[in-house]
Amino acid sequence: MSYYLSRIIPLAFEDAVMRVKGSLAREGFGVLSDIDVQATLKGKLGVEFPAYRILGACNPAFAHKALLMEDKLGVLLPCNVIVRQSAPGQVEIAAVDPVASLERTGNTGLAAVAAEVRDRLQRAVDAV
Amino acid sequence: MSYYLSRIIPLAFEDAVMRVKGSLAREGFGVLSDIDVQATLKGKLGVEFPAYRILGACNPAFAHKALLMEDKLGVLLPCNVIVRQSAPGQVEIAAVDPVASLERTGNTGLAAVAAEVRDRLQRAVDAV
Repeated sequence: MSYYLSRIIPLAFEDAVMRVKGSLAREGFGVLSDIDVQATLKGKLGVEFPAYRILGACNPAFAHKALLMEDKLGVLLPCNVIVRQSAPGQVEIAAVDPVASLERTGNTGLAAVAAEVRDRLQRAVDAV
Repeated sequence: MSYYLSRIIPLAFEDAVMRVKGSLAREGFGVLSDIDVQATLKGKLGVEFPAYRILGACNPAFAHKALLMEDKLGVLLPCNVIVRQSAPGQVEIAAVDPVASLERTGNTGLAAVAAEVRDRLQRAVDAV
C-alpha cells in the first residue's frame, strides 16, 4: 500500500497551493499548518530546494471522533497535503493516505473514519 | 512496533509545552507548526476537550537528506510531538516514532536517518 495519494498537474506553483486549499475546504478540511520547506531549508541550511509546501489538513469532526478513540493520535495528525514543484510548469500534489496512517495504531475502531477521510482527500486531490 | 515514544510527567500543561520546545531545540529540532487541538475543537465544533498541542518538530539537516531520497516524504513530516493533559496535574508527552513512519515508504535508504532522528526524539522526550 502506498503511503500517499498523488497527482501531477500543469499549474503554476502558487496557483496550485491556492487551488489545493480551496479544494480541501470544499471537502470540509481546514488548513491548520502551512510549512514552506523551500524557505526553511534556505533559511536554516542555506541550500536551494524546489518550491515545496506542507499543508496540514484537518476535518475537525473526524479528528475529534478519532482522538476520542485513540488519545495519542495527534502524533499522526493533521493529514498532510504537499504541493511541490516536480518540473518546470508542473506541480505534484500528494496527500498522506490516512488509511495507511491509522492502521499503524492497530486500533481497528478507526477504520471507518480513516476510509471516509481518505475518500474526501482523494476527491480534494482529484478536484484541484 | 508502537507508533510513538511517550512519557507521563507530573507537570503543569503550559510548563510542559515550554520544556518540550527547549528539549527539542537542544537536540537540533525547530518547531515548524504548533496546533492547539483544544482551541480548534472548541472553535470549530463547540466541544470541550482536554489541553492538547501538536508540535511539528523538524531537524532541517535530516529533513533535507531524507527529502532528497524520497521526494514525497513531506506527507510524513515534520515529526509530531504531542503534549496532552492526561490527568489533573499530569501531562503525557508523545513523539511519533520516525522509524515506524519512514518504513511506510518502503525506501530502505531512509533507515539510517530515521534511526538517528528516533534517538534524538527519544533523548528530547527523556530530558523534559
